Amino acid sequence: MEFTDYMADGLTLEDKPREACGIFGVYSNDPEFDASGMTYLGMYALQHRGQESAGMVISDGTHPTIHKNMGLVANVFSRDTLDRLKGRIGMGHVRYSTTGSSLLANAQPMMARCSKGILAVAHNGNLTNTEQLRLQLEMEGSVFQSTTDTEVIMNLIARHSNDTLVNAIMKAARVLKGSFSLSLMTKDTLIGLRDPYGIRPLCLGELPNTHVLASESCAFSSIGARFIRDIQPGELVVIDKDGVKSYQYSNSPRHALCVFEYIYLARPDSIIDGLNVHLARKAMGRELTKEFSATADVVIPVPDTGISTAIGFAEASRIPYDVGLIKNTYVGRTFIQPHQNLRDIGVRIKLNPVESVLRDKRVIIIDDTIVRGTTSGKIIRMLRDAGAKEVHMCVSAPPITHPCYYGIDTSVRKELIASSQSVEDIRKYIGADTLTYLTLEGLYRAIPQGRDLCVACFNGQYPVEIPNNERNDKYILEG
Amino acid sequence: MEFTDYMADGLTLEDKPREACGIFGVYSNDPEFDASGMTYLGMYALQHRGQESAGMVISDGTHPTIHKNMGLVANVFSRDTLDRLKGRIGMGHVRYSTTGSSLLANAQPMMARCSKGILAVAHNGNLTNTEQLRLQLEMEGSVFQSTTDTEVIMNLIARHSNDTLVNAIMKAARVLKGSFSLSLMTKDTLIGLRDPYGIRPLCLGELPNTHVLASESCAFSSIGARFIRDIQPGELVVIDKDGVKSYQYSNSPRHALCVFEYIYLARPDSIIDGLNVHLARKAMGRELTKEFSATADVVIPVPDTGISTAIGFAEASRIPYDVGLIKNTYVGRTFIQPHQNLRDIGVRIKLNPVESVLRDKRVIIIDDTIVRGTTSGKIIRMLRDAGAKEVHMCVSAPPITHPCYYGIDTSVRKELIASSQSVEDIRKYIGADTLTYLTLEGLYRAIPQGRDLCVACFNGQYPVEIPNNERNDKYILEG
Amino acid sequence: MEFTDYMADGLTLEDKPREACGIFGVYSNDPEFDASGMTYLGMYALQHRGQESAGMVISDGTHPTIHKNMGLVANVFSRDTLDRLKGRIGMGHVRYSTTGSSLLANAQPMMARCSKGILAVAHNGNLTNTEQLRLQLEMEGSVFQSTTDTEVIMNLIARHSNDTLVNAIMKAARVLKGSFSLSLMTKDTLIGLRDPYGIRPLCLGELPNTHVLASESCAFSSIGARFIRDIQPGELVVIDKDGVKSYQYSNSPRHALCVFEYIYLARPDSIIDGLNVHLARKAMGRELTKEFSATADVVIPVPDTGISTAIGFAEASRIPYDVGLIKNTYVGRTFIQPHQNLRDIGVRIKLNPVESVLRDKRVIIIDDTIVRGTTSGKIIRMLRDAGAKEVHMCVSAPPITHPCYYGIDTSVRKELIASSQSVEDIRKYIGADTLTYLTLEGLYRAIPQGRDLCVACFNGQYPVEIPNNERNDKYILEG
Amino acid sequence: MEFTDYMADGLTLEDKPREACGIFGVYSNDPEFDASGMTYLGMYALQHRGQESAGMVISDGTHPTIHKNMGLVANVFSRDTLDRLKGRIGMGHVRYSTTGSSLLANAQPMMARCSKGILAVAHNGNLTNTEQLRLQLEMEGSVFQSTTDTEVIMNLIARHSNDTLVNAIMKAARVLKGSFSLSLMTKDTLIGLRDPYGIRPLCLGELPNTHVLASESCAFSSIGARFIRDIQPGELVVIDKDGVKSYQYSNSPRHALCVFEYIYLARPDSIIDGLNVHLARKAMGRELTKEFSATADVVIPVPDTGISTAIGFAEASRIPYDVGLIKNTYVGRTFIQPHQNLRDIGVRIKLNPVESVLRDKRVIIIDDTIVRGTTSGKIIRMLRDAGAKEVHMCVSAPPITHPCYYGIDTSVRKELIASSQSVEDIRKYIGADTLTYLTLEGLYRAIPQGRDLCVACFNGQYPVEIPNNERNDKYILEG
Repeated sequence: MEFTDYMADGLTLEDKPREACGIFGVYSNDPEFDASGMTYLGMYALQHRGQESAGMVISDGTHPTIHKNMGLVANVFSRDTLDRLKGRIGMGHVRYSTTGSSLLANAQPMMARCSKGILAVAHNGNLTNTEQLRLQLEMEGSVFQSTTDTEVIMNLIARHSNDTLVNAIMKAARVLKGSFSLSLMTKDTLIGLRDPYGIRPLCLGELPNTHVLASESCAFSSIGARFIRDIQPGELVVIDKDGVKSYQYSNSPRHALCVFEYIYLARPDSIIDGLNVHLARKAMGRELTKEFSATADVVIPVPDTGISTAIGFAEASRIPYDVGLIKNTYVGRTFIQPHQNLRDIGVRIKLNPVESVLRDKRVIIIDDTIVRGTTSGKIIRMLRDAGAKEVHMCVSAPPITHPCYYGIDTSVRKELIASSQSVEDIRKYIGADTLTYLTLEGLYRAIPQGRDLCVACFNGQYPVEIPNNERNDKYILEG
Repeated sequence: MEFTDYMADGLTLEDKPREACGIFGVYSNDPEFDASGMTYLGMYALQHRGQESAGMVISDGTHPTIHKNMGLVANVFSRDTLDRLKGRIGMGHVRYSTTGSSLLANAQPMMARCSKGILAVAHNGNLTNTEQLRLQLEMEGSVFQSTTDTEVIMNLIARHSNDTLVNAIMKAARVLKGSFSLSLMTKDTLIGLRDPYGIRPLCLGELPNTHVLASESCAFSSIGARFIRDIQPGELVVIDKDGVKSYQYSNSPRHALCVFEYIYLARPDSIIDGLNVHLARKAMGRELTKEFSATADVVIPVPDTGISTAIGFAEASRIPYDVGLIKNTYVGRTFIQPHQNLRDIGVRIKLNPVESVLRDKRVIIIDDTIVRGTTSGKIIRMLRDAGAKEVHMCVSAPPITHPCYYGIDTSVRKELIASSQSVEDIRKYIGADTLTYLTLEGLYRAIPQGRDLCVACFNGQYPVEIPNNERNDKYILEG
Repeated sequence: MEFTDYMADGLTLEDKPREACGIFGVYSNDPEFDASGMTYLGMYALQHRGQESAGMVISDGTHPTIHKNMGLVANVFSRDTLDRLKGRIGMGHVRYSTTGSSLLANAQPMMARCSKGILAVAHNGNLTNTEQLRLQLEMEGSVFQSTTDTEVIMNLIARHSNDTLVNAIMKAARVLKGSFSLSLMTKDTLIGLRDPYGIRPLCLGELPNTHVLASESCAFSSIGARFIRDIQPGELVVIDKDGVKSYQYSNSPRHALCVFEYIYLARPDSIIDGLNVHLARKAMGRELTKEFSATADVVIPVPDTGISTAIGFAEASRIPYDVGLIKNTYVGRTFIQPHQNLRDIGVRIKLNPVESVLRDKRVIIIDDTIVRGTTSGKIIRMLRDAGAKEVHMCVSAPPITHPCYYGIDTSVRKELIASSQSVEDIRKYIGADTLTYLTLEGLYRAIPQGRDLCVACFNGQYPVEIPNNERNDKYILEG
Repeated sequence: MEFTDYMADGLTLEDKPREACGIFGVYSNDPEFDASGMTYLGMYALQHRGQESAGMVISDGTHPTIHKNMGLVANVFSRDTLDRLKGRIGMGHVRYSTTGSSLLANAQPMMARCSKGILAVAHNGNLTNTEQLRLQLEMEGSVFQSTTDTEVIMNLIARHSNDTLVNAIMKAARVLKGSFSLSLMTKDTLIGLRDPYGIRPLCLGELPNTHVLASESCAFSSIGARFIRDIQPGELVVIDKDGVKSYQYSNSPRHALCVFEYIYLARPDSIIDGLNVHLARKAMGRELTKEFSATADVVIPVPDTGISTAIGFAEASRIPYDVGLIKNTYVGRTFIQPHQNLRDIGVRIKLNPVESVLRDKRVIIIDDTIVRGTTSGKIIRMLRDAGAKEVHMCVSAPPITHPCYYGIDTSVRKELIASSQSVEDIRKYIGADTLTYLTLEGLYRAIPQGRDLCVACFNGQYPVEIPNNERNDKYILEG
């Protein structure tokens, strides 16, 4: 998860926490199975989890082949490329990364030859002890060609040259700290595993004669696969010609799925750890009404992530739901900010008000988070310019007061507005008539398995040990 | 408007009428005005009207410069390109075209030197007498380097070498038949005009010291411009250092805006000929409830164009609105169909069901049109697979029984399912429990200026003369 | 012909007159004939005549197709492109152009639809009355999308809508002034013509059941075709299913082939107007010895165009021929000049001395022309740095004192060093021990048809009328 | 060195042994020194040694940056790229590779982080114990992301985590077998070394305050640097702020420079191990006359590598030198073979005869090697078609009878015509009137340090141990 801008050139169009990656894997016993086509579909369904680079490894049981590049799945893979990647076993990865490391060298999966033969690794998450592990490995002779966690994991596994592949992976996984859902592949085996806290999701599905792994179940829906179950925290599954074997490679002290999967990251049609994301958001909307006391004429979402919550809010409050903001889906990374200084241009090009819905109305606007507050301020100003009489901002999560060490982009950490400002200060800053956050209790009521979530960014209770120097940094933030 | 597939390789992801183009123009008296940046923003806001090619002409009052290429606005223009296009006067064009003419030579605007000096032309619409005009011009010595209507228009204007520019344009416009909203530009003048029936939209807005033309008012919203008014059918406006001058170059027998602008083509936040598109769609939804008699548990839209209509339907019927289908916004033209035969894969990759919303429910699904019926059939099957108990299809337009000569892609004309099948036959074909079309009367009630629309595709009453050979072709269809 | 720098960024690697274009055409009666493959080969053989853009038109007798783009033949055409260009009739063009007009819009051939049906035109040469013709055509309604002579020629032909194609072309050709070798193509006919003075070359060859046109006979050699004859000044040939028909569309006042074809432009293996280029250059080398009086140890060429002349000089003078300069063939247009100021870096990266050949030697260096003298100065300094005791510069042409109006790049005209400096001044400027130019009489002796050449750049006697304003400009130069 | 075709698609345009790489390094103490510009120039001068990929690493003394890609130097580096690579220390590499490993992952230099900090390695040569070293390293935990020797070398160095950088490199170099000239770079140090036999060249030069390393001295000439000396077999030089330090890391059993550097690979203006390549070739030409007994009218080279030899032959034999074949320098890797079957098309597009030089002549044609004989056959047929009365083929090297293990492309090893055919058989096969090879004794006379060359491909006496399985393979060849 990274808190970063969506745009390269300083234009703040999005002001949201960003997740790092999506992973997909498929193993079929049908020799005619089109693993590259299937992986391509699976990656398309997970594209919202990462738009920076895309890659896949495909094996016919003997020779794994890889293709990866910067860009969207649509740009990285051509018909020719897919046709060249022949086989019945496949693994794909989509990546979102901070600007500093937007390098092809960091694109995943990583494939290499080592004591385990050809091995490919795809990673979703963020290790907290990468640097320490890397230094130790370097002292033992390892060579690093990228700055990714993935290469550290690969080297850790390669060290155990006398173990079986599965034992080597389990030994390596036990020294990793932080969040990691992994998919690994050899010429004839597919492996998936989830960290002991289950911070990042990973689930298992099936097609006839075939098993599938994916970060989110929406990928199963796209390929017509049946959802079987989530991989458990601390579990490793091996998929090969004999089917699926499960290993509990580590005790799971507690289950701590990142709450932002429900709030913001995942697709509404996905089911994560037993709960549909759309329903979770609707429930947050319902809970939000309990904290909200003003009267209003219309409930509108900030698209797209506010939509489910707004529908839930509208149903519970009996205030009509409507479309008050249109999102321009063509505005992406390559958008160029004009030289002319236009007020709120960043938001205007991405979101536009529907004046006939807003004019002379008391408007409730539903968003999922406020990170720095700048985008919220621009949206509220735009609603008022379009004639809204009152603007009530409702946020489907508690204030973010603590940094994340399992994926957050630390470069913007100090900019977390709620780490230093009161709700009333934030309300004034963004210019809302009222500002309502969902409480942690409300969040727990909305999500049945609430206590099994990582909510460290709301309360500072980190499930996994965080680095010392980082801890200091946090205190500064909190001071 | 073109009835064509969205995908190059035969995968029917969209089965909708497609409009050809969006045009944008801006004229400022401020010498520092960044016309290329502003045109870039305007084109982004009109991108939904055409994704095949993009181009702009910019002038500093003396030297017009052009840049155009195949692809989205985001791909065609870089920071360097925009910086090279310097000036305070600009004109942009986004184009959708049939496969056959997807050539750079057909990209717009077209810029050329002729008796009027440097002239640039951008066109939205479809002429019905192109071939006749081209042959006549060829006999007089004209040379054609593309197959566009635009080049015919340019040559017609160039013929009038002894007339002023405005007179030459008006003379040329009077011999054009069919639909045409035009923007024209010289080194120091911007001109806009709309055909005598106003089949395609065009409107006028303003910024300080600056005037703007656009196919839809949503482009004004993106750049912070104020909407002034629609250009009238048969009207031509000249924008230069003296402001805006209006000429009625032709009588307007009647106003006949293409009804599909409201149903499908335009962005919900646009106001066209005085009516907001989102409100028009909500009204269609309300009217649809009057034709619908079944009972149901939930109303869901086919995103994105069904959303407004579904909200209107839900409000009027008091049946809850919900999100039952998630649209993958990353699936575009470059999607490659896998070799493996997956049932309904085309629809599955683009749309996915939210099972928790659908399971055991009686579902009303709202779509805007049924062209061939194949996509509707796949969506309904997907809803049932996801557990829907009943599926009731409601369409926010009457059956399309007649071909369009003002923009339709004739290659798929014979495939209009409603031209040969009864509503009951279509219902069976798509597998719905009930199928309800909005009636023409309902449509007229929903849209106040209803009688001022072109609804030829529903009733065969063509406002502008259509070619003879085409007429025959139509009879075959109707036979 | 253009006198321009080879490099975009100010680095003077070449300081030579540059020709504009090469044309190739092929017509076969064999339905299986691979015209695109053959045209591709022909264009490769003519690549030295133009590296800016490349294009070809291919017809199967019914449908002509075109492909062109900026760049070398190797970059413009892929296997896929060639496979799509199916047919037995073809025409290709390679273009060299000045920086100002390096636009895709100016790439050739130009193909358009007009009163003659689909017509394609490819042009080698430079008209002197383009602007006058274009203005006149504009007043008659023509529209120009490029700044090429070719589009003017196309429009002139299109005007004669009541004439046969051949008559229309002949009428058009009669009003053209300047240099022009043309190839034209319809769906089923190939036409070639040469201007009344034959300033640019064009020749006719044959393969079984097939005829070929090319700017130089070296293209025939590449495809295994037999050379038949040169097209005559003022002659037009029509190649179609009935074979070759010849028309003398204009009297030829005199034959005036551009002398630079022999000196610099053409490939040594070509035969132009009956004379092999390599032999012509060897003869120039022989004649040069008659003007040269010093003694020396070794004769070395400036590669590649000085090679033939140097061999001729060495044979006649009995001074040994050797390789004293190595040319780096990888240095092309895209070379980037380093920031660091290196003495003579432009020449050093392109040419390197062979010290063991030069050390302590009296060296005769043979070059074809001196335009501005800067490159010659750098080469001589480099030879001295490498140890040459004396450097004697011999030039295989007389001093260039007059500008060219049939192809020269006028922007550098004032920089012709010999237009204002004496031979002795030039010798001092370039730092040679002696400087010897071939005399005009020597040139005439070397080339048997000498009096039939255009040598206006040496003596100011222009065969074709030149524009008035240009004439003034020239006087300034001469004054 | 690789014996491979020049063309991707099966068209045999070149039939020559191919060298793998060129390396360049520069270290300046001047903080303003433009190392990227200088490395760019150096790589241009070495481009003939490798055209598949290009890369460079530049450091400002603190942060090394890398850029590499497939393609020519001209395509891989733009002005922007060079500007981003800031620093005073640099290292560049150009690579030629077999088709199978034409992957970006194999492009050089390789840069990585290890126990020595950031380290970059560039390699010219071929190890004979790669596979054995790689397996051993894998067992110790190493991970390999490419199939290059370079990555093996990097890992070997990284293992010695307790040694200084220089000691680690020397320890690693001592276990390498085969040919290797290496350049290595850290943030503040440049290192060069040559294998104990000096099979590949490497030399040292200087600019003010700056030292330079290059595969060939022609790179010094391009940047105006002064040649100091060759790096000695078994020598390692360290260049840093204290100047150049030399270490003899290994005894050199004998000096065994690959003879093909003189015959074919190096540029004529380079000086390798004290001998100018052009002079060496001229001497080979002189020696060849001693073996040649026929009479003839003209001596012509196969361009470009035959030129120096032919001049030497002509001088010694007093038979006139002339240009009988013109080489088309535009024909490169991207050339597409036409579908039409043209006799000898591969040779015709690349080489064309000058008929006026050949007609009715007894021609001596000088080439550097005959590998498979097919190209020679085509050239001789072309000369006869152009009118040559007799064709005498002279080859500036002895017959290649043994495979090379220090760079040869083993896939075509069996196709070495001289490994199984007598000279008379080869003469018949290629269709020459006589065929003369230079003898090994002649070669030794021509090259003063003759006995210090590796001539294993002529006599099977390999200086460095070769792999066992390969040895068997060789016996098959010889059998």
